[in-house]
Amino acid sequence: MKSIRVTVWNEGRHEKNNENVRRVYPEGLHAPIAAHLKEHDFDVRVATLDEPDHGLTEEALKETDVLVWWGHKAHNEVRDDVVDRVHRRVMDGMGLIVLHSSHFAKIFKRLMGTTCSLRWRVADETERMWVVDPTHPIAAGLPPHFDLPREEMYGEFFDVPPPDELVFVSWFEGGDVFRSGCTWRRGKGRVFYFRPGHETYPTFFDPNILRIIENSVRWAAFNGNDSVVPQVANIIQPLSAIAPK
Amino acid sequence: MKSIRVTVWNEGRHEKNNENVRRVYPEGLHAPIAAHLKEHDFDVRVATLDEPDHGLTEEALKETDVLVWWGHKAHNEVRDDVVDRVHRRVMDGMGLIVLHSSHFAKIFKRLMGTTCSLRWRVADETERMWVVDPTHPIAAGLPPHFDLPREEMYGEFFDVPPPDELVFVSWFEGGDVFRSGCTWRRGKGRVFYFRPGHETYPTFFDPNILRIIENSVRWAAFNGNDSVVPQVANIIQPLSAIAPK
Amino acid sequence: MKSIRVTVWNEGRHEKNNENVRRVYPEGLHAPIAAHLKEHDFDVRVATLDEPDHGLTEEALKETDVLVWWGHKAHNEVRDDVVDRVHRRVMDGMGLIVLHSSHFAKIFKRLMGTTCSLRWRVADETERMWVVDPTHPIAAGLPPHFDLPREEMYGEFFDVPPPDELVFVSWFEGGDVFRSGCTWRRGKGRVFYFRPGHETYPTFFDPNILRIIENSVRWAAFNGNDSVVPQVANIIQPLSAIAPK
Amino acid sequence: MKSIRVTVWNEGRHEKNNENVRRVYPEGLHAPIAAHLKEHDFDVRVATLDEPDHGLTEEALKETDVLVWWGHKAHNEVRDDVVDRVHRRVMDGMGLIVLHSSHFAKIFKRLMGTTCSLRWRVADETERMWVVDPTHPIAAGLPPHFDLPREEMYGEFFDVPPPDELVFVSWFEGGDVFRSGCTWRRGKGRVFYFRPGHETYPTFFDPNILRIIENSVRWAAFNGNDSVVPQVANIIQPLSAIAPK
Repeated sequence: MKSIRVTVWNEGRHEKNNENVRRVYPEGLHAPIAAHLKEHDFDVRVATLDEPDHGLTEEALKETDVLVWWGHKAHNEVRDDVVDRVHRRVMDGMGLIVLHSSHFAKIFKRLMGTTCSLRWRVADETERMWVVDPTHPIAAGLPPHFDLPREEMYGEFFDVPPPDELVFVSWFEGGDVFRSGCTWRRGKGRVFYFRPGHETYPTFFDPNILRIIENSVRWAAFNGNDSVVPQVANIIQPLSAIAPK
Repeated sequence: MKSIRVTVWNEGRHEKNNENVRRVYPEGLHAPIAAHLKEHDFDVRVATLDEPDHGLTEEALKETDVLVWWGHKAHNEVRDDVVDRVHRRVMDGMGLIVLHSSHFAKIFKRLMGTTCSLRWRVADETERMWVVDPTHPIAAGLPPHFDLPREEMYGEFFDVPPPDELVFVSWFEGGDVFRSGCTWRRGKGRVFYFRPGHETYPTFFDPNILRIIENSVRWAAFNGNDSVVPQVANIIQPLSAIAPK
Repeated sequence: MKSIRVTVWNEGRHEKNNENVRRVYPEGLHAPIAAHLKEHDFDVRVATLDEPDHGLTEEALKETDVLVWWGHKAHNEVRDDVVDRVHRRVMDGMGLIVLHSSHFAKIFKRLMGTTCSLRWRVADETERMWVVDPTHPIAAGLPPHFDLPREEMYGEFFDVPPPDELVFVSWFEGGDVFRSGCTWRRGKGRVFYFRPGHETYPTFFDPNILRIIENSVRWAAFNGNDSVVPQVANIIQPLSAIAPK
Repeated sequence: MKSIRVTVWNEGRHEKNNENVRRVYPEGLHAPIAAHLKEHDFDVRVATLDEPDHGLTEEALKETDVLVWWGHKAHNEVRDDVVDRVHRRVMDGMGLIVLHSSHFAKIFKRLMGTTCSLRWRVADETERMWVVDPTHPIAAGLPPHFDLPREEMYGEFFDVPPPDELVFVSWFEGGDVFRSGCTWRRGKGRVFYFRPGHETYPTFFDPNILRIIENSVRWAAFNGNDSVVPQVANIIQPLSAIAPK
C-alpha cells in the first residue's frame, strides 16, 4: 500500500523572531508534527512561508495528498496565486488540515466563505477537549476527554458554516466553549479545522494532539472519487439521443 | 392571526412527593412555563401523567400545535398507546419540545432511535450556556451567553443522532460540556431538545430559559406543509399514462 | 409589521441584446419577480449591472433585507469591491436568493468556497420539480411536485458544499436529476440557491416559481440575531476575573 | 488485517412461494450478494427469517461487523426481541445496510423514528442512478451515473430524517426522483439505506449495485471508537474533586 503523502506547512516566523517560541519549538512548530507522521509511515515533506513559492509549487502540491497548515501573523504575505493553487488542489481532492490561528488563513476563509472570526484570550488556562462523535475516524484511539494544561482560549461565536461533522468541543477554565474539531467537504477535498496549537505552548508534543492530527490526515487522504470520470462535456443535441431508451 | 396552541405536559410526581421540589415549584414545574406562554398570547393547556390518558387524548393532541414535555422518574408509566398517539401527531406536523430529564422519555427515544444516554452529576455547579448559532430563531433576543448559577450537570457523550442544527452548547464549572440545544426534523414535525431544568433548581423561572422555550415553541409551530396534499395513492398503471407528455 | 425590503438584481444584458429574451421578458427578467413581490406587500427595489455601482451602493444594501440575484454572461463585469460589499452584508445578516445561472456569480462562489460547476443542456425539455422537505417554509403552499414544460437542464455533480437543507430535487426528461433548491447559512445570513430560470423560457411567470421565490425571501429575511450583541472585545486579563464565581 | 465479518440477512419467502422470483434468484436474493462479498475477502454468513431466532442469535450478532438486510412481506414476523438485539448491536457499533423494501423493516423504523413511507410503482421502468457525493467512500469506483434497465419505482416524499449524507439520487422513466443512497449515524453504528432491489428484477447481479453494497459494508464496518472507553460512571462528589486543578 502506498504511503499517504503529507506536506506540513508552517509560516515559520515566530520561531525566528520570538525566543519564547524558539524555546518551545527549536526546530519549528511543524517539526514535531512532521516527526510524528514520519514515525507512522507517512511520506512527509515540510514547507514554509519564506521558501520560494512558499514551498507550494504546482509540482509539490500535485504530489501532496494532504496539506497541514499552520499560520498566524503573516497570513497576508501568502501570495494570492499560491492560494488559488492550493484551492484548486482541494477542489480536485487534496485534503487540508487547518490548525489553530490558521482560522484566518486566506485558504481557509476562501473555502468557508465566512469571516472565520472568533474570540480569544491568552491566560495560561486549562483546555479540556471532549469527543462528541466517538465513532468518527478522527477520534479513533482517544479517551472520552483529555486536558491541555495551558492553552490559548478560543471562544464562540466561531463564524464558520455549520460543520458537516462536529467531532470535538473544548471547555476552558475561564468559562468558554468552542467547536474545536470540525469537518467540511469542499469540492472533492476534505477539510478539518482543529483548534489547539498556540505557539508558546508545547501543544504539538502532546500525544493526543498528535494522534488527532495523524487521524485527520488519514481521514482527509481518503479520496473516494478516484475512478469517477470527469464531468462529461455539456451536451447540446436532440433529446431523443440522450434519454434512456 | 390565530394563537399557537401549546400543551405543557409535566410528569408531576416530584412536586407531590418531594418537599424540596414543592418549595421551588409549588404549582408544579409546568406552571411557570405555562404562565409565561399565556402572557405571550399562546393558547395554553397543561396536562400531567396522573390525568386520564395522561391528559393526552386524541382530541387534546389534535388541538395541540406544540407539545412541551418534562418527565423524569416515571417515564415507564407513560402508556405505550399514548406514546404511539403522540408519535403519530409529530409525524403529522405537531412540534415537540423535550426538556432536561425527558431525554429518556419514551417519545424522545422513539423519535431519535438511539439510547439517548448521557453522563450527569448533581453538584450545585454553574452552567454557562453559549449561543453557537446566533441566527437561529430559537436564539432570538438572547445574549451571546448567560449563566444558570446552579444546575445539574449533563455531560457528553450524548447519544443522539447528530442534530440537524446545534443552537446551544453548555459549559459546566466541573469541567464538562454539553450540546444543550439541538433540533431535528422527524416526519412533518419539528423536535427541539433543551437541556436545563432540574427539579430542585428554579431554572424555569429564569427569563433567558423562558425566552428560549417561547422561541422554540414558535419555531416548532411553524408548519410549512399545510397545503402539501397527502401522498398520492400508489399507482400501478401503464407508464405512458404517468410520464410527462 | 414592517415590510421586508427586497432588492431584485438582474444582470439585464440578454434583454438588451437578444430578441428572443426580450420577447419573453420585455421589462427584464427581474420584472415579473418584482411585480409578484410588490403584490405581496414586500418593499421592492430593482437594480441592474449597468447602473452606477451596479445599483448596489452601501446605502442600498444597508436598506436591503434580502437580495435576489440573477446573472449569466457578465459575471466577470461585477466589480470586486461591490462583491465585497454584498459579502459583508450577508455576513451581517442580509439574505441572498441565487437564481439559475447565478451559480457562477462571484458572490455565490465566494460564499460557497467551491467551483459551483454543473452540467447543462438546452433542449426544450420538461423539468419536474419534487418537494423533498415538505415542512420547509420555502415549500409552503406547494403541491408535492409540479412541471415546467420547457427549461434548460442542469445536472449533477453540482459542486457546492453539502447543503444544510435540501428542499427540491428536479427530474429532467433527458435523464438527469439536480439538487434544485438548497439552503446554506453563511455568517448571520441565509442563502438559498434555486435552479430554474433560463432566459428564453417564461419560468419567472410560473405561479409555483413565484411562490417559491416569495417563500424564500420571507425565509431569508428572518434574522434571529437582532438582539445578539456584537462579539465582545478580546480579553487579556487575569483568569480569576472572568471565570464564573 | 482481519476480514470484515458480514451477515447477509434475507426474509427468504418470495423465493419459496413465487416462481418469478425463484427464476431470478434460484439460491435466494441474498446469494449473489454473499457470493460477491466472499470473492472480495469478506467473512460472510447468511441468515434468513425462518431459521431459529431468524439466524440472529446474540452470538451471531456479536460476531457480525455489518448486517445487510432485505425484507418485504413478512416484516411483522420478525420477533421484537430480535429487533431489540439488533438495535443494541447497532448502538454498540455494528453497521447496518438496509436494502429496498426493508425501508419498512422494524429495525429501520426503530432507528429512524419516522414512518419511512414512500410512493411506489411497478412498471418495468428504467432507473438511472446519479452520484451526488463523488468523494463518498460508498461511491468509490462508480461512474457518474448508471442505469438499471427495469426496476420498481420509489418516489418522494420519503419520510426519513434528513440524511447525514446523501450519496445517490435516482431518476425514473415515469417522472419521479428518489434519495436512493442515504447515510445516518445511530449510536456508535453506521446505517446506509440503498433503494434498488425489487425481487422480480436481477438487480443484485448488477456489478454497480454489488460494488455499492461492497463499498457500503466497508464504510459501515469502520468503527472509530474501538478505544473510546465506556461512559464513565455518573459522579456525585464535591465539585473541587472533579474540576481541572
